[in-house]
Amino acid sequence: EYQELQFHTSHGHYWASYSVENRRPDLAGFAVSSTSVYVCLLEGSTGATPSEEMNGTGNLMDFLDEPFPDVGTYEDFHTIDWLREKSRDTDRHRKITTKSKESYWELIKSLLDAWSGWVVMLLIGMLTGTLAGVIDLAVDWMTDLKEGVCLSALYYSREQCCWTSNETTFDDRDKCPQWQKWAELMTGHSEGAGAYVLNYFLYVLWALLFSFLAVSLVRVFAPYACGSGIPEIKTILSGFIIRGYLGKWTLLIKTVTLVLAVSSGLSLGKEGPLVHVACCCGNLFCSLFSKYSKNEGKRREVLSAAAAAGVSVAFGAPIGGVLFSLEEVSYYFPLKTLWRSFFAALVAAFTLRAINPFGNSRLVLFYVEYHTPWYMAELVPFILLGVFGGLWGALFIRGNIAWCRRRKTTLLGKYPVLEVIVITGITAVLAFPNPYTRRSTSELISELFNDCGALESSQLCDYVNNPNMSRPVDDIPDRPAGPGVYSALWQLALALIFKIVITIFTFGMKIPSGLFIPSMMAYHHHDWIIFKNWCRPGADCVTPGLYAMVGAAACLGGVTRMTVSLVVIMFELTGGLEYIVPLMAAAVTSKWVADAFGKEGIYESHIQLNGYPYLDVRDEFTHRTLATDVMRPRRSEPPLAVLTQDSTTVEDVETLIKDTDYNGFPVVVSRESERLIGFVQRRELTVAIKTARQKQDGVVSSSVVYFTEDNPQVAEACDPQPLKLRRILNLSPFTVTDHTPMETVVDIFRKLGLRQCLVTRSGRLLGIITKKDVLRHMAQMMNQDPESIMFN
Amino acid sequence: EYQELQFHTSHGHYWASYSVENRRPDLAGFAVSSTSVYVCLLEGSTGATPSEEMNGTGNLMDFLDEPFPDVGTYEDFHTIDWLREKSRDTDRHRKITTKSKESYWELIKSLLDAWSGWVVMLLIGMLTGTLAGVIDLAVDWMTDLKEGVCLSALYYSREQCCWTSNETTFDDRDKCPQWQKWAELMTGHSEGAGAYVLNYFLYVLWALLFSFLAVSLVRVFAPYACGSGIPEIKTILSGFIIRGYLGKWTLLIKTVTLVLAVSSGLSLGKEGPLVHVACCCGNLFCSLFSKYSKNEGKRREVLSAAAAAGVSVAFGAPIGGVLFSLEEVSYYFPLKTLWRSFFAALVAAFTLRAINPFGNSRLVLFYVEYHTPWYMAELVPFILLGVFGGLWGALFIRGNIAWCRRRKTTLLGKYPVLEVIVITGITAVLAFPNPYTRRSTSELISELFNDCGALESSQLCDYVNNPNMSRPVDDIPDRPAGPGVYSALWQLALALIFKIVITIFTFGMKIPSGLFIPSMMAYHHHDWIIFKNWCRPGADCVTPGLYAMVGAAACLGGVTRMTVSLVVIMFELTGGLEYIVPLMAAAVTSKWVADAFGKEGIYESHIQLNGYPYLDVRDEFTHRTLATDVMRPRRSEPPLAVLTQDSTTVEDVETLIKDTDYNGFPVVVSRESERLIGFVQRRELTVAIKTARQKQDGVVSSSVVYFTEDNPQVAEACDPQPLKLRRILNLSPFTVTDHTPMETVVDIFRKLGLRQCLVTRSGRLLGIITKKDVLRHMAQMMNQDPESIMFN
Repeated sequence: EYQELQFHTSHGHYWASYSVENRRPDLAGFAVSSTSVYVCLLEGSTGATPSEEMNGTGNLMDFLDEPFPDVGTYEDFHTIDWLREKSRDTDRHRKITTKSKESYWELIKSLLDAWSGWVVMLLIGMLTGTLAGVIDLAVDWMTDLKEGVCLSALYYSREQCCWTSNETTFDDRDKCPQWQKWAELMTGHSEGAGAYVLNYFLYVLWALLFSFLAVSLVRVFAPYACGSGIPEIKTILSGFIIRGYLGKWTLLIKTVTLVLAVSSGLSLGKEGPLVHVACCCGNLFCSLFSKYSKNEGKRREVLSAAAAAGVSVAFGAPIGGVLFSLEEVSYYFPLKTLWRSFFAALVAAFTLRAINPFGNSRLVLFYVEYHTPWYMAELVPFILLGVFGGLWGALFIRGNIAWCRRRKTTLLGKYPVLEVIVITGITAVLAFPNPYTRRSTSELISELFNDCGALESSQLCDYVNNPNMSRPVDDIPDRPAGPGVYSALWQLALALIFKIVITIFTFGMKIPSGLFIPSMMAYHHHDWIIFKNWCRPGADCVTPGLYAMVGAAACLGGVTRMTVSLVVIMFELTGGLEYIVPLMAAAVTSKWVADAFGKEGIYESHIQLNGYPYLDVRDEFTHRTLATDVMRPRRSEPPLAVLTQDSTTVEDVETLIKDTDYNGFPVVVSRESERLIGFVQRRELTVAIKTARQKQDGVVSSSVVYFTEDNPQVAEACDPQPLKLRRILNLSPFTVTDHTPMETVVDIFRKLGLRQCLVTRSGRLLGIITKKDVLRHMAQMMNQDPESIMFN
Repeated sequence: EYQELQFHTSHGHYWASYSVENRRPDLAGFAVSSTSVYVCLLEGSTGATPSEEMNGTGNLMDFLDEPFPDVGTYEDFHTIDWLREKSRDTDRHRKITTKSKESYWELIKSLLDAWSGWVVMLLIGMLTGTLAGVIDLAVDWMTDLKEGVCLSALYYSREQCCWTSNETTFDDRDKCPQWQKWAELMTGHSEGAGAYVLNYFLYVLWALLFSFLAVSLVRVFAPYACGSGIPEIKTILSGFIIRGYLGKWTLLIKTVTLVLAVSSGLSLGKEGPLVHVACCCGNLFCSLFSKYSKNEGKRREVLSAAAAAGVSVAFGAPIGGVLFSLEEVSYYFPLKTLWRSFFAALVAAFTLRAINPFGNSRLVLFYVEYHTPWYMAELVPFILLGVFGGLWGALFIRGNIAWCRRRKTTLLGKYPVLEVIVITGITAVLAFPNPYTRRSTSELISELFNDCGALESSQLCDYVNNPNMSRPVDDIPDRPAGPGVYSALWQLALALIFKIVITIFTFGMKIPSGLFIPSMMAYHHHDWIIFKNWCRPGADCVTPGLYAMVGAAACLGGVTRMTVSLVVIMFELTGGLEYIVPLMAAAVTSKWVADAFGKEGIYESHIQLNGYPYLDVRDEFTHRTLATDVMRPRRSEPPLAVLTQDSTTVEDVETLIKDTDYNGFPVVVSRESERLIGFVQRRELTVAIKTARQKQDGVVSSSVVYFTEDNPQVAEACDPQPLKLRRILNLSPFTVTDHTPMETVVDIFRKLGLRQCLVTRSGRLLGIITKKDVLRHMAQMMNQDPESIMFN
């Protein structure tokens, strides 16, 4: 029973730490010298005096004390080792706890450290909320800028401009004198063909300008700022490193271009990008605290919470945001994170409310005022809406993925700017004539979700007024529908088809784009037709806004395959707690229908399309393969590159590092016995040898590298001073036997977040399985193209 | 590279299955015979003819084909092996998928199997909803029975009785003629001291009768039906076996006694027990499908969903139920389960609504009608409520645990019936004089949560009427408070103190008891005092109902330490989406304050008190111990009991089984090399040897038991026929090295749900760590009494 007494650098991230229950406490103080002093015991040694030896020791000590540059970090496009990160954090935590007993200052520091998680959450919530508020205000202003300008204050959007107007009726307010359309301002005429054409032209021009600016900014400054960002964030949260994806530059450019892209009238939403923006904020504040900046595992906890804050501000749905983060985005989500995410989401929603871009004091984005009960029989149309939503979701995913694949493989991908300009042009030209597509999508949804009130000026509420009744009547649907309703229905149907088609081409372009709101709006009014057929006009039997809400949930469910979080978001969005059953019914149906056409949601499809190494927790691996079928080396390949514990020379190691590109090497007792003793990371091996060559006397190419506790039994005189590297040896590598079913191996990789796993039989090392091998094997088993997994 | 060609019984639960990518497909057909035929190759064999040998083979085949009785099940008070259960389920699934390609009938069977999960959820939801509805109706009736009886129909509760009354005003309705108090019925007088005393006496008598019946039923028929059940369900869901805890008998008795206990007026809620009832339903329906009944892992997925359904009906909060199950109860909660739980919770809530015990068509239990906004400054009292809730929670847990410990250790525990009778007596005697404690708790909460309306007859709404104003005024708080309000405040304060004290003694008694509603009611009116001081009477500045709601959330948070699920339950319960921020603020504060006094919620405390082997996912293990410090055998102990792969005799094995009580034995190559090849379960070893002794010719005490693929190299003549047991050998036991930090080991146990883990160094077996060892070590490190973990 030997005792591992080991030396810790300030990094303190090595797995094999010494026991806290030190059984030989008297020796603990000498641990440093007893392990690090190397004294040549054999005859014919260098003959150095003890003091010189101590100097040598001093050097060695320096070398050991000095932190390796970048040790513990990972290279770009590599996978992190969750267990190791967790272990490092516990070490750090232990050190702080031990220190905190020494002085008050250390105690305060330890308390600050304990609270830093909450501070980060607070900061993330505040910044995310602020950014979301600013984006909302800017989008409002710029969307209206396409049509006209506010003369009283150029920075006012139309709503703000007319808010202070003296006109009291709603109809007049819409035409308030302070707000002028471009044609009116330039030519003085607000009506007529000339004005219409001029407005049309300027609308398209502004749209093109905005989108050109957006795509150029993305291209020049931050290529990672494009797209929705959610597939990449899922991949990052699962433990992949993409440097710069959540950087400050990306944050800035994404915020600006998101405003431009949404304002340009493209069929995209700001919800996915807001999640990306929130995660950038999270990453930014992580860098303030070494607890998070130096630990990739802890950092991902913060990012999970940031994602929740992003959804929270996107929909004004804090609980929905937390559930979204849990269900859709996050990989490792301990309960502690749940609680903090909740806090971050709350702060973010609250900050947004303080900035108050929706003009009311409620937290709810599209507050619905109706509380009419629904009837059991209505479940049938709700389920039909679910079926439609599922079909639309499946169609959308197929179409979008096919288009994106084409973009990747053909000439199309070479001209992203042109593509954006063309799509914007088409969108703007087609959108202007139809009032439902001309306006911003969120305005439209707000109108559709709401019931007709007496003061509503919307065409959809243009029911024939009974002249015998006084103007403000509450029961408007009791009157027959006027011509406005029918024309509105036509326009809505056209808008629907247009949006469905254009969204397929828009999502995935090189500008920030989300698809929540577009898919939500996609099918809000099918209901109107059902409503017409089912109930005679004149009977207030259904609530059209409810159908719009259910339809939106169904479409979103079909596209993203969210379940619980979707329902929660929808009812937080609308405040309609009574309608939880219809929403659930539609979401369930929609998911089932869409799943029948393909198991993956839009984000998973994009992850696969881009070949990110994402190990989905939802994929069931049910094949009967064993670890031995997956491990490397395969039968035809050269044997596994291993190090021996005491017979490899520095030169051998250097050759091995040069000749291979493996991330690490197993260390065995000897090539004959093949008994595994540990695993050493390539990065740390390289750094250690380089540092030793520079700083440690006597380490030359023929020096023996040894990983044992005691010095090796060198037969010869010890002039080439051996190099002890036990410090960088991971003494607890993860192993499975060759007979372990792959489903268990996949489970272990998923749940423990491993990077690699060694395969043994009866204690003998047979091979290695990396995360990449697992992914490749899974793809093979599912008859997918294994080569699509490009990164390590 | 050898190929494992192995034989599968219909159980198909062994880990080492043969590869699906059979590299020698021509041999696959012969796999059965090539492994199971044992031919004595040595000279001097029995001289059996080939046909006899084939007979022998036939016997062996029979033995192998025949399912072992109870193989794959666990003993009572043992821990399941999650990985193994999962592996078994995948095997089953694979078999069904393969078969489904053979015929239409098999295809239909496979589809039925795939849908059985949803069917189980549907059944659970429906039964849970029905039972909850029946319980609600029965409790209403029996609670009222303590005071009087409905003359028009004996089975009507007071509300139902007076519902059809002709009296139209609310005041008159309360005194409807069909409903008679006992004194009125017996003596004819409804007023006066005599009537009061008679009513008082009968009230106490009924209460005593109900509680005596409840405790007797529990004692005689189903001892597991007592208490809240949530600590035990948490333990069961974490992988522990408690036979009968979720049985039919428990279900029946718990349902009946829950009604009796709640009706007796004891300070307990029906929420925890409803979760237990729902889990019993889940277990009941599991037995209909072999997919769930034969797999303890899958069964637990169903139980998690059932718990969600239980909370869903308890509060009318389906989403809150799912979150409660996720956050508080469940251990292994894959996303698939989330989705199904959601469905079960929905069906249950829906069924309950169909039975409609709350008399309205809403899903919401205590629907609040106010939608008045709250102000930022109000956050201060909300946070104070949170602090109070946290303090109350910590106090309650301390007090209750101290009382329960006393019950366990002193004479008190010997007389549970007497204890229940005494507590009921005290409760009833003290409760009757105060109108707020006399009524059922849910009625009280409903009144407290609601704002005063014009038609409200509650004393709390007794504001002075301005005679100049017409009767139904909307702005009642504009008037000064009348004497009724002040007396109500006094009574409420007394009720509060009474409830706080009595609940501590009630929770944990030998009758079904929950504590949600009691703790919710505990501090609903502190607010009133603040309200009085802060706002002058006559100003409608705060909503008292909101304070009640926030206070309830704070108290519940302090007791259970729930976070997200608590807020969701509270706002589903009341429908007040606007008040999410106050609820969150109070819940956060309450948890922080309570955590400062002790990390564990009431359920965890009870788990610890009872010594259940529950490995909490929330406990951070941060000590620096290594696997080598925890593994058995310790230094002073005899070496590990192992089997060798080809040199142990049947007798040796039988002696080992008799002398030890380990759950399994590692198998090594030889005692000298100590190289691990697998792990064999005690139970399977016993069964296999017993069956072989009975059915397999030539197996005697001196037969060699071997686990290798080939027959052992026996030096002598092979007359004692060796017994091949490779089939029951788990070829992929979980191993860690002796240097693995315990935090990693704890993580592995938690995440993979292991039962035991072997410890090796350089491929050499050193020891074993069981879940019990891990729990004992964690308790030691936290300075708890390690002996309190009683079960294996």
